[in-house]
Formats: sequence, C-alpha cells, structure tokens
Amino acid sequence: MSIRIGIYGYGNLGKGIENAVRQNPDMELAAVFTRRDPETLKIATAGVPVVKADKVSEYKDKIDVMILCGGSATDLPVQTPQLAQMFNVVDSFDTHAKIPEHYANVDAAAKKGSNTAMISVGWDPGMFSLNRLYAEAILPDGKDYTFWGKGISQGHSDAVRRIDGVKNAKQYTIPVESALEAVRSGACPELTTRQKHVRECFVVAQEGADKAKIEKEIKEMPNYFADYDTTVHFISEAELERDHSGIPHGGFVIRTGKTGAESENNYVIEYSLKLDSNPEFTASVIIAFARAVYRLNKENQFGCKTVFDIPPAYLSSKPYSQLLKALL
Amino acid sequence: MSIRIGIYGYGNLGKGIENAVRQNPDMELAAVFTRRDPETLKIATAGVPVVKADKVSEYKDKIDVMILCGGSATDLPVQTPQLAQMFNVVDSFDTHAKIPEHYANVDAAAKKGSNTAMISVGWDPGMFSLNRLYAEAILPDGKDYTFWGKGISQGHSDAVRRIDGVKNAKQYTIPVESALEAVRSGACPELTTRQKHVRECFVVAQEGADKAKIEKEIKEMPNYFADYDTTVHFISEAELERDHSGIPHGGFVIRTGKTGAESENNYVIEYSLKLDSNPEFTASVIIAFARAVYRLNKENQFGCKTVFDIPPAYLSSKPYSQLLKALL
Repeated sequence: MSIRIGIYGYGNLGKGIENAVRQNPDMELAAVFTRRDPETLKIATAGVPVVKADKVSEYKDKIDVMILCGGSATDLPVQTPQLAQMFNVVDSFDTHAKIPEHYANVDAAAKKGSNTAMISVGWDPGMFSLNRLYAEAILPDGKDYTFWGKGISQGHSDAVRRIDGVKNAKQYTIPVESALEAVRSGACPELTTRQKHVRECFVVAQEGADKAKIEKEIKEMPNYFADYDTTVHFISEAELERDHSGIPHGGFVIRTGKTGAESENNYVIEYSLKLDSNPEFTASVIIAFARAVYRLNKENQFGCKTVFDIPPAYLSSKPYSQLLKALL
Repeated sequence: MSIRIGIYGYGNLGKGIENAVRQNPDMELAAVFTRRDPETLKIATAGVPVVKADKVSEYKDKIDVMILCGGSATDLPVQTPQLAQMFNVVDSFDTHAKIPEHYANVDAAAKKGSNTAMISVGWDPGMFSLNRLYAEAILPDGKDYTFWGKGISQGHSDAVRRIDGVKNAKQYTIPVESALEAVRSGACPELTTRQKHVRECFVVAQEGADKAKIEKEIKEMPNYFADYDTTVHFISEAELERDHSGIPHGGFVIRTGKTGAESENNYVIEYSLKLDSNPEFTASVIIAFARAVYRLNKENQFGCKTVFDIPPAYLSSKPYSQLLKALL
C-alpha cells in the first residue's frame, strides 16, 4: 500500500511536493487543501480532490502524512500544531531563532494526537543542519561555516519591490569566492557579514522614477543590505522575465578541523548544493523525510522530530539488505 | 561518567583512536589490547594499561565500547563477532562485497551478548555511504558517483613493493578533473574505470634494478593498474621519505538529479573530504559513532548497526536542546 500524502497550501512548495510524489512509486497524492476557492485551483495530478482547508478534518483517515506548505512567519506557527493533532505532519519552518518554541508546540500537539511530526525539513534548516552536526561530531577541534547562494532570496527581493518607484525586482545572494577559499585553506578566518556574501539586485524601475534614489535606498537599507556590498542593475521587465524568472539557490557547509598528537593534520569536510529550483528541492527533501515519518508513526514513535532524530535508512524506499549491499 | 574506550590493535588506526579520544571530553581511554608483547608497546597516553589480547575478557566490565583496529582481510571477520559477544564494538570493515555476511555474523554475536555493535564505520564505507543514501533518497531521478583521492592507496602501494627490484613505493589514486566536471554538469556520463581515476607511483628501485622492467610490470598488473593510466616516477629513498611519508586521502560523492513537471530542473549534491591523515580521520568518525553505540546500548538496542541506523543526534556530545538552538 502506498503512502498517502496530503498537501496543505498549494504555492511553489506545494507544487514541488506534487512533483516529488510522482517520483516516488511508494507514494500517492491523496488530496490538496487550500484556503482559496477549490473551484479556482487547477492542480497537475488528475483525479486528486482539491479541498477547502476548513474541511481538512474529514480527511483524517485518508491521509498518512500531511505536508504543510505555508510560510514560516504566520502560517506554520499556527497550522503545524493544529494539524499535528489530527495528522502525521512535515513542515519546513525556517525561522531559526524560533525553532525551540515551535518544536515544543508541535511536540505537545503531536503527542496528544498520537501522531508523528517533523519540523524544519528542507536544506537549511535540513540537509545543511545535518552536515553541520555530522562534521562537528567528527572534528570537535574545528570550525564550520555556512555560505548561501548563488541564489534568489525571496525576502530581499520583496524588500526591494517595496521601495517607491520599483516595479519589480529580483535579488541574488552570492558567496564571496575568496572567503570560500580562505575557509577551505583551514585558516579558520573570522569573517564579517560583508566578507562572506555579496548581494546583486536586478530592478525594473517605474517610468520616470529616480534611479539614483532607488539605488541609494537599496544600498542603505538596514539589516537587508547595509552590511553588504550590493550591486544594483536597472533592466527592463522583459529582461527580468527572460533572465531572472527562475528560483535557483544553493550553498556550502564547510568544516575544517585538526587531529594528531600536535594537531598537525588538517581536514576539510565540504557539503554543497546547486539547485535550479529552491522550492522543488525543498519538496524533494520533505518527501524523503515524509517516508521516515510514516514509518516512525507505525512504530508508535509519536511527538515532534527533526532531521537529527531520523535514522538515515528510514528515508530510503529500498530494503535494508539492499542498502547494505549497494550503498554501504 | 565518561565513556570508557578500549583499543584492540595498536597500528595507525589504533593510534588515531587514541588521539580522537583525547579530543572528546566525555570519553576516556581505558586500555589498549595488543597481540604483541605489551612490554614492548609504548603508547601516548600516560597511565593506561597495555594488555595482551588474550586477556581481553578480564576487561569485560571496564570498557564501554571496544574499537577494533585490525584489518578487514583476516582480522575483523574473526575478531568483531568474537568480541561483540563480550563488548559493545565498532569496526571499520571495508570489504564492500562481504559486508552482508559480516553484518549477519556480528549481529548474531552482539545479540547473544546483549551488546551493540557497529560495522563499516569510517569514511568509505561510512560518511560516503551516508551521503550516497541521503542524496539518492532526495533525488530518486538521478545518478551518483564516488571518486577517491588524491590519496595514498595502501593496497596499491603494497602491490608495487612486492615487485622484484623495488625497495620501497607509494601509490596515489587521483580523480580525473575532467570526469568530475562532466559529472557536476549533470550530463550523467557513463565513465570507465580509466576515465575516473589515474594512478601515480613513486618508486625507490634497488641498486642495479631494471627500471624499465619494473615500470612495465606495474603498468600491466591486472586489477591493480592495467585498467588505469599510470605514471611511474623513480626517486631516491630520501625523496620518498621527505615528500611522500604522509597518509593523505579524500574524495567526492556527487549526485545529480532532476525534478519538475518536465524534468526541467537540475541539481548537484556534492560531499567532499580532504584529509591529511586517512587513519586519523577514520578514527575521528569511529569515535563519534562509538558515542552513539554507547547510547543505543543503554537503550537496550542490541545487535549490529551501521551508519544507516544511527539518528544523527546520537553522535553529538551536545544536549538535544542545544542542537535545536545552535545547529538546526
């Protein structure tokens, strides 16, 4: 019997989940839930019901794992605990500072419903977190660094779009190559925000807008840009559409460390991702962990889990004997 | 109370374990076991007993996890099952083809003794295996590649040393840069053995030896060199000592894959290691997993485990709340 997946929220991430389910023969899409009028929503998979979000409780026995595809700012803090009382759930909550609080809320709710929940699944938090943990455990005498990009930052693009006179904009976060090299050298540099990443903006200005003023406003924006070296390019709407309509991302987790009687031996552990589509990759990670959630729930392991709790074998559709033979 | 580690076999790996224990404040070295005369063995840690291997049973209650540091060819197939009846154990068994058989033997022995055992811990098998599994689970529509090097291959160095007229030799395995690039491009190339790695040998010939004959014999050696492009350099013993006395290694696990309604999005997941000392890094991985073995045993999870079974949090000396806050 296949694992019945529910999608709660049908934006970029929800669509990515739909695609990822199709790549995994042991899974099927059971229903898509939306706050919009279900009649207006056209999904890619034939024969799958699109259901108004407030009717979700009617699907309690028809879904094995519900994937929450809302935003971390306001959706998930409410939705994940709510739905974890009724379903096994996975979310991609990524407000790092609020993870402990979210974990506690989801844990209580999932235990109440005898469900298994996973929060903060994706690549950061997610695969990058795992790589930070593994590398730190292996090389306790060392230092790790996370770099993001080259990729589109949604939050920064939105911030630029809110500026007066801006019609549209995309912002790329780009790791500084010389900083990456300094880290890989094992020198354990102390890097400032400015030294680690640069920001590049592609802006479509409204007709007659003061471009110099827009550029200044971007570069001086506190938190978002003031601490970075930022480049601003003004381009046409057509150019933006043609060259910058993707949602690529990626990054690097690098740990360097030392061993030996006199710390004479050096090591570099590096994990990197290069992603054409940030939401589709996040969805692919979530779907692999949804398999683990399903299995843990069958073993009565209730409550909230993170990537740190999951035995890797639980992610694979292959039997354990095959993992020993083919992957170990 | 700290985790009491035993070392069974005091070669390069055993010495690495000794160094790794020193980097982990929650561990202590309890004893070193050797088949040699203990009187002749000088270890680096003061106050730790060096014990004849045949007296190991006297230490049954004095050691929490025994690290087996013998070779995969003849030592571990016998020693790991034997000692798993008495101790929690970790080994680095690396004969890939015989892992299922070794697993079964160790599993039966560990269960008989209510112990927890882990086999094939290190970087390959070990961290590379984990990365193959994670990447395959995330990107089912994809292909993975493992490259080794640049590093010293002990087996190939030994093979060269056995040739008539060779006084000493070191052999480096080197990944082919253009093959790495082809893989990263997402082209999913089919690569032959020759296309993936080259081999470089540094040979000290005996006085009067026929160097042309030695070079020919190396390059035509079946299994070891015949399928590779091999370079042979004749150097002096002093040069070998000066430039090639380290035991560096490393490598790459790369998986490329696709997602999207029309498989239009491409991904590269890459994990790489650059290691000054192969045995010390292996030891560092083993010691992190020894912590997990200790904890699993406290939870009565007996039998044989591999890296695929271990929830990553079990590797860290940090409390879970700290992992959520600092690493997720």
